[in-house]
Amino acid sequence: MHFASDNWAGAHPRIAESLAALASGFAPAYGTSDLDRKVEEKFSEIFEREVSVFFVATGTAANSLALTSVSRPGGVAFCHRESHVVEDEGGAPEYLSGGTRLHPVDGALGRIDPDGLLAKMAHFDPQFVHSGQPVAVSITQSTEIGTVYSLDAIEKIGAICREKDLPLHMDGARFANALVSLGTTPAEMTWKRGVDLLSFGGTKNGCWCAEAIVVFDPRHAREMPFIRKRAAQLFSKSRFIAAQFDAYFADDLWLDTARYSNAMAGRLARYIEDSSKMRLAWKPQANEVFALMTTSTAEMLQSKGVKFHDWKIPVGFDASAIKAGERLWRFVTSFATTKNDIEAFGRLIE
Amino acid sequence: MHFASDNWAGAHPRIAESLAALASGFAPAYGTSDLDRKVEEKFSEIFEREVSVFFVATGTAANSLALTSVSRPGGVAFCHRESHVVEDEGGAPEYLSGGTRLHPVDGALGRIDPDGLLAKMAHFDPQFVHSGQPVAVSITQSTEIGTVYSLDAIEKIGAICREKDLPLHMDGARFANALVSLGTTPAEMTWKRGVDLLSFGGTKNGCWCAEAIVVFDPRHAREMPFIRKRAAQLFSKSRFIAAQFDAYFADDLWLDTARYSNAMAGRLARYIEDSSKMRLAWKPQANEVFALMTTSTAEMLQSKGVKFHDWKIPVGFDASAIKAGERLWRFVTSFATTKNDIEAFGRLIE
Amino acid sequence: MHFASDNWAGAHPRIAESLAALASGFAPAYGTSDLDRKVEEKFSEIFEREVSVFFVATGTAANSLALTSVSRPGGVAFCHRESHVVEDEGGAPEYLSGGTRLHPVDGALGRIDPDGLLAKMAHFDPQFVHSGQPVAVSITQSTEIGTVYSLDAIEKIGAICREKDLPLHMDGARFANALVSLGTTPAEMTWKRGVDLLSFGGTKNGCWCAEAIVVFDPRHAREMPFIRKRAAQLFSKSRFIAAQFDAYFADDLWLDTARYSNAMAGRLARYIEDSSKMRLAWKPQANEVFALMTTSTAEMLQSKGVKFHDWKIPVGFDASAIKAGERLWRFVTSFATTKNDIEAFGRLIE
Amino acid sequence: MHFASDNWAGAHPRIAESLAALASGFAPAYGTSDLDRKVEEKFSEIFEREVSVFFVATGTAANSLALTSVSRPGGVAFCHRESHVVEDEGGAPEYLSGGTRLHPVDGALGRIDPDGLLAKMAHFDPQFVHSGQPVAVSITQSTEIGTVYSLDAIEKIGAICREKDLPLHMDGARFANALVSLGTTPAEMTWKRGVDLLSFGGTKNGCWCAEAIVVFDPRHAREMPFIRKRAAQLFSKSRFIAAQFDAYFADDLWLDTARYSNAMAGRLARYIEDSSKMRLAWKPQANEVFALMTTSTAEMLQSKGVKFHDWKIPVGFDASAIKAGERLWRFVTSFATTKNDIEAFGRLIE
Repeated sequence: MHFASDNWAGAHPRIAESLAALASGFAPAYGTSDLDRKVEEKFSEIFEREVSVFFVATGTAANSLALTSVSRPGGVAFCHRESHVVEDEGGAPEYLSGGTRLHPVDGALGRIDPDGLLAKMAHFDPQFVHSGQPVAVSITQSTEIGTVYSLDAIEKIGAICREKDLPLHMDGARFANALVSLGTTPAEMTWKRGVDLLSFGGTKNGCWCAEAIVVFDPRHAREMPFIRKRAAQLFSKSRFIAAQFDAYFADDLWLDTARYSNAMAGRLARYIEDSSKMRLAWKPQANEVFALMTTSTAEMLQSKGVKFHDWKIPVGFDASAIKAGERLWRFVTSFATTKNDIEAFGRLIE
Repeated sequence: MHFASDNWAGAHPRIAESLAALASGFAPAYGTSDLDRKVEEKFSEIFEREVSVFFVATGTAANSLALTSVSRPGGVAFCHRESHVVEDEGGAPEYLSGGTRLHPVDGALGRIDPDGLLAKMAHFDPQFVHSGQPVAVSITQSTEIGTVYSLDAIEKIGAICREKDLPLHMDGARFANALVSLGTTPAEMTWKRGVDLLSFGGTKNGCWCAEAIVVFDPRHAREMPFIRKRAAQLFSKSRFIAAQFDAYFADDLWLDTARYSNAMAGRLARYIEDSSKMRLAWKPQANEVFALMTTSTAEMLQSKGVKFHDWKIPVGFDASAIKAGERLWRFVTSFATTKNDIEAFGRLIE
Repeated sequence: MHFASDNWAGAHPRIAESLAALASGFAPAYGTSDLDRKVEEKFSEIFEREVSVFFVATGTAANSLALTSVSRPGGVAFCHRESHVVEDEGGAPEYLSGGTRLHPVDGALGRIDPDGLLAKMAHFDPQFVHSGQPVAVSITQSTEIGTVYSLDAIEKIGAICREKDLPLHMDGARFANALVSLGTTPAEMTWKRGVDLLSFGGTKNGCWCAEAIVVFDPRHAREMPFIRKRAAQLFSKSRFIAAQFDAYFADDLWLDTARYSNAMAGRLARYIEDSSKMRLAWKPQANEVFALMTTSTAEMLQSKGVKFHDWKIPVGFDASAIKAGERLWRFVTSFATTKNDIEAFGRLIE
Repeated sequence: MHFASDNWAGAHPRIAESLAALASGFAPAYGTSDLDRKVEEKFSEIFEREVSVFFVATGTAANSLALTSVSRPGGVAFCHRESHVVEDEGGAPEYLSGGTRLHPVDGALGRIDPDGLLAKMAHFDPQFVHSGQPVAVSITQSTEIGTVYSLDAIEKIGAICREKDLPLHMDGARFANALVSLGTTPAEMTWKRGVDLLSFGGTKNGCWCAEAIVVFDPRHAREMPFIRKRAAQLFSKSRFIAAQFDAYFADDLWLDTARYSNAMAGRLARYIEDSSKMRLAWKPQANEVFALMTTSTAEMLQSKGVKFHDWKIPVGFDASAIKAGERLWRFVTSFATTKNDIEAFGRLIE
């Protein structure tokens, strides 16, 4: 019963087949092959505008280089206190951007609170060199704790960014899960709401290794080829990423895997709601489910082969809702989650 | 007729199969799976000692982070003037290492001249803070122009490094080609000759994307997990690299592909030697062949579908040997080069 | 009436004379003159042990390079949320240290709370590469808001650092003010309590420009000459700083100016305590006085020529103690503050 | 007899007096005082256009931050192989600019050869990300070996820069010496010939510590306040630099000290020309004189108290002109050089 993380899964069969099919033959290197171009054009089609696309090795690279591309001296980027860039990237955003500071903003359930954002921004006076200067806002869609920004919420933050003349970056490591959760289009969830830069993740949703930086205004992407190369993120056989994305987008595989994954999370959540051994911490909106239970219950489950991890109580979560002995635990589903595993888990916690 | 570069090839069928076979199933992420460990142990076996291994996305990353791990403030690394780190990595070594300077050393046919190295080192007085301080020597095996350091030459440079208390790094993007060219063992070509850090490349020799930093003394690898993560080079589904290396090493596939590739280069070279239209610039020792011919000959070949590039006259090459109208051109073979292509090329240049 | 900042003052007459006296004559450059050595030895004498001393241009440089010298990849340094390194150095510590993150710790009245520090540290698991790794703790003595760590408090934090094997840095931009406030010795306030690195400031206490990094264990200072040079902080005519420190230490001028400055702050505080127009926010322990008053009172004072600034309500300050209309304001004294100014201010606020 | 370096001198009496006079009184910090503004305006007057001026601590800082301000990812800056930025700044330009590579260009007598510059530039194809991208050209006026670029030579390099759309930086650590040598104006020697950024040095010509970055087009200086602060180069009591420049410019002191210094160099050179013990290596154009003599002669002089250093044979110097046993030696004069010392030296080498 694998709920440890969506990156414990392998690759979707159609992704694997696409890679295998591409193995033979020759093609220009460093992202200049026909397949690379075809996939780049597919991105433009999906986003309903001409976009610039840059494949990179990891989501951390996508986030870090997106922020690097907009950074300026003494730069400060606003992001949620518990976002991946802050908590899980080993300092890569600061390091790769030449020291840009990640300024933590609070907000319930993993989402930046627009008022909190404005309050943080108010501390920065453009003439006061000592504090540094705001350079970007970064949000995560879906968030680290399985919630999703509504289109209105994105628009609100986008409006703040436009007013302050700051670019808005979206960490979309789980972009597809959020997209199908909202039932909207890629364009509506991004540039139409004010997003300027996107880390588009395919790895967690069925690829081996397929991450891309999407720049919505190609004029802002001029330095990106050098930024990527300088960060050692330009693959020679780039088309092995292109091949994954090619299959990912074909026949909307990516939406199917995301829908499936979210559905599995929903089913898991219902079992938890019905359980007397644990309870939902909050309603899942994507492919991550958070539950409160005692350590002894968790250990019982783990002894039965259920893989999952404990989690830190998030900012803004009402601690008084946690009963004595309870802790918070995370369950993640993916394209590879089996219904059997869900059922077996359901039986265990009845 | 594909001789443009060894990174224009795809993946060897056995590499592709290994990846496909791994697609299903779950395993811990970030390099902690059983397969990751198995491959790491295989590296130790191949190198006949316990080594530390770190998979990264590109050869540029391997070189840059290897140098980063030994860098110090004001650091200066000695490398051949025409090495990949100097000419083809977009500034990644300097950027990722916090400004380490690459100090170019000359030497004929792509190989550092030990006396030239000593002469460069003599300019650095450990007490003279203004010049910076030497931190490493880096050599490339096989070199950018298809030559190979002999074991004696490596030992000589290794001895200089030990005397100066400097680590020796080997850029082994084409490690296997050099290894089978010398007919020696990985241990003999590296740590037994004084090499401390190795960029071990699999991509050019049949993988999609399989590069590793090998640290021969694990005590020197303590910071490497953080160095790699901070540089956004830690793959979540790391076993997709492990699977490639697993197949790469199985039944010595990597040595077979390297031998094949070198043999194809040898066959190509013989055709060139016999040709009246072009001539060998120097004897190839690995999988790259360099020829002198006129631009009109080159254009004729390209019009017939032969893919290859022009190349800069290397340092130390006797320019007087170049006849009027001639330029230098590079041909690269790989595991995927077909004998048919070689024969067809042979016929074209008869 | 100048209470805006201690860096609005010029230089103490004896500092100015010392510089003037040194103007003629020749001496070796880059910190190798006899006077440089004499002053370095004086530091060792003052601190009652052999120390390594590095003059730099600014307090920000001292802090940033001290942290740089102990940083490691993915490094995280713990410091008070409202410390100078976090709020007033324009990102220099992050930038110069290659991206070290400043991890904010709370604590009342500008001082790190040891329990809060331990709680923050507990989030970092040495094996969990994603979070980065702790590399240092930094405290400020006296703090940004005019309070002082007791020797016991320093010892407590020093003990945590030793237990976690982390270096302890002290930002001593106002070192002398804290020292005379505690009535202790430099040794007792630093290395005897576990401080490993000190930013020793002379500028705010009577010099033009005299800042130094003091490394208490010279074995840890080996890279510092290169760190300083690489950061463009090695003065050619270094003795112009040495001359300032020479006069600063002669006949304990530095202690006299600090005592005077603190005494002026005490006198100012008493006037505020007796005033009906404003009240002390907290008891000053060094040369900064914080008062609560309405904006209209502040504007009245400013219209009379009193120079001072508003200040942010610090973390841990009981907001309920602030009455409607009140804000927080800072007054800073220095060696150059005149008793006349204090008296005149006293009369204004009666 | 002090000819070791112009930074072995102290400060000119009028500089020292200016600093002393400023010691009392209060003024806003961080470069916002009236005196700071007055001096900034003086720069505009001297350069006959509105310029932006940024005081920094060292010439290395001025050079490094000037280059940082124009750098871009994978940046390559062209400079003379033996320039100060390459040989004497401990890696600061690379480090502070995030890894910009200094690309060495040859040229006789310390000056970049325009054709050599064009040849180097030709290796960089704007579309070829692997090589990095040109970002600047930097020249030194006067050069490290006491020669001076003619106005025509600067114009030629300026024209190349404009054609290539690259900014031209001038390292003016000895700006005044070159200026009076050419008998021209600051405007003619800089922006009227295509110079965009200037490191303006006062330290070697009579100040204690007075270096400034001059940006000729203020629109290009927008990020500089943050660049300087982030590099820990913003002085709190900035007016102690302003006071030095104030005296430096008053009554053209700076031109007088430079003329005097150059004249002393000329007199020294004539003694050398007349000597049988040594000979001029090349004609001095500023305040540095280079001579060829045997080590035994040099040791004899040093034993008589003459301070001077040996020097590396520069690129482009005809080695065949060096007789057996001879080496190259440098003599530097300054405002503080005494005629007595020159005469005494003359007698020693008769």
